[in-house]
Amino acid sequence: MSIPPEFSLIYKHFLPLAGPGALALGDDAAVFAPPAGRELVIAADAMVEGVHFLPDDPADLVARKLLRTNLSDLAAMGAVPLGYLMTVSVRRDTPEAWFAGFAAGLAADQAEFGLQLLGGDTTSTPGPASLSLTILGSVTPGAALRRNGARPGDGVWVTGTIGDGALGLLAATGRLPDPGGVLAGRYRLPQPRVALGQCLGGIAAAAMDVSDGLVQDLGHLCRGGGLGAVIEASRVPLSQAAAAAVAGDPALLARCLAGGDDYELLLAVPESREAALLAAAASCGVAVTRIGHFRPGIPEVTVLGPDGVPLALAAGGWSHFA
Amino acid sequence: MSIPPEFSLIYKHFLPLAGPGALALGDDAAVFAPPAGRELVIAADAMVEGVHFLPDDPADLVARKLLRTNLSDLAAMGAVPLGYLMTVSVRRDTPEAWFAGFAAGLAADQAEFGLQLLGGDTTSTPGPASLSLTILGSVTPGAALRRNGARPGDGVWVTGTIGDGALGLLAATGRLPDPGGVLAGRYRLPQPRVALGQCLGGIAAAAMDVSDGLVQDLGHLCRGGGLGAVIEASRVPLSQAAAAAVAGDPALLARCLAGGDDYELLLAVPESREAALLAAAASCGVAVTRIGHFRPGIPEVTVLGPDGVPLALAAGGWSHFA
Repeated sequence: MSIPPEFSLIYKHFLPLAGPGALALGDDAAVFAPPAGRELVIAADAMVEGVHFLPDDPADLVARKLLRTNLSDLAAMGAVPLGYLMTVSVRRDTPEAWFAGFAAGLAADQAEFGLQLLGGDTTSTPGPASLSLTILGSVTPGAALRRNGARPGDGVWVTGTIGDGALGLLAATGRLPDPGGVLAGRYRLPQPRVALGQCLGGIAAAAMDVSDGLVQDLGHLCRGGGLGAVIEASRVPLSQAAAAAVAGDPALLARCLAGGDDYELLLAVPESREAALLAAAASCGVAVTRIGHFRPGIPEVTVLGPDGVPLALAAGGWSHFA
Repeated sequence: MSIPPEFSLIYKHFLPLAGPGALALGDDAAVFAPPAGRELVIAADAMVEGVHFLPDDPADLVARKLLRTNLSDLAAMGAVPLGYLMTVSVRRDTPEAWFAGFAAGLAADQAEFGLQLLGGDTTSTPGPASLSLTILGSVTPGAALRRNGARPGDGVWVTGTIGDGALGLLAATGRLPDPGGVLAGRYRLPQPRVALGQCLGGIAAAAMDVSDGLVQDLGHLCRGGGLGAVIEASRVPLSQAAAAAVAGDPALLARCLAGGDDYELLLAVPESREAALLAAAASCGVAVTRIGHFRPGIPEVTVLGPDGVPLALAAGGWSHFA
């Protein structure tokens, strides 16, 4: 009896990624002994071809982005990665090389971030490729970073640089010059701040990752804490490539602030813990920047321009159902 | 600051489904205290519009099928359901009534099967609706039912009836008469054997759910145990509706045996445990039928016709990448 083609694909390309709990991907489910004395942290994200990645993006980078957007959620909770399940729906004529590249990308990031494939499902679709990944991590009980702890006076901090993902999408689609491909590279391969996230217990009062745009996501922290925030556009850290693009077209600044796909951490940090934050960030080799502060009032984000006048941003951030 | 439309949809329709660990769906991930002294069982399945369900299927039944196909995986492992994460990618013009119906279906099955929404992601897609669900359950450590325990002489058993799902797809697409809609109903709303699955520890030597067709899935148990199996077509339990259809067109028998979407349990049961199986099945109100036995030899499934001659089945079962 021949093995159906999807099982051949799964066994050949995905089995080498599987951890012991995956039961060799040969059972109906994985069996997973949760680490003793820890809470589980679990998140799921979907990616659709043409929405979250481009049809001609290399398969290995698509896989790594899928894993990394989920790793970024673990980072925002301060969790240690454990494993993941994945569903892959692709067209029937998808070449085997795509599966090989996809699996190679996963293998690279499994090694980098220390987690294993636990299970999933591979199906056909007549439409765009549709990928979904559920990630599991663990934290000390009660120690998960949350979105609801910001207090008036806390600083608003971000890791890394903001806007590269949004500008990178423009670059990757030929709408923005991108010497060296730095911006497009950042769009295709985010850098989840997993190690730093694990160091932020007792430092960050609130945390989340920036996936739908800085301003919109900061609004979530405001609503979570029942307070407002004010940030200064000039303090928002831009990469050299993004700064050059904004210098050429100042309107791109709004896209940096409101666009998505940053996968940096957005933190509320009390002043008394700033030294600890800087030390943790230095030990992880991650830049952190204070861009504003939280203040009492209605949950609203104010972005001050260079002249101290609030900017009117056209849109709060990326929305799937505008 | 307005909340983006997908958050309104999520809060309105999905928040009522969320369990405590979901953190009101307002954080980057759920935090989940695994039940003490238990192993976790975790599985993921995808469903694509036009592949796994029909474009005009009611949203509540699509949701319940998504949940139930995953519950069927837990049933096959003998696990108790705990919770689930879900990603939903639908077209931007999806009416809110679809979300309302989808959530209502989930609510009904959450109540019936005792589990809660833990998290997920809602995105747009330019293509067919693409759904993915990751389900978590728990078992006593070491007690998960597996696919690899069948031994020569064990009986091949199935729960319920076989073939309704495959014939139901024909019926739902107007290719088969279906008085009363029984077959189409079975296609749209499987009955996962969750309660019985939990009673099969110490009874079933091997178990899986029948999702890709009886013959193909029995092949998995054969490969898992390194042995063959022989079943008699005349013993395979058919519903009244399926039996009537096969009486009208004997070629449909092959579709019952090789088609998918049954979501019944397929078991290897030693003769010494048959009484225990029958008692467990009776206590759960589920029919069980012995349709053949495992035998030494190469992992191959033989299906004997009414005259004792092996049937040649055209295809092993459903495959996404034939």
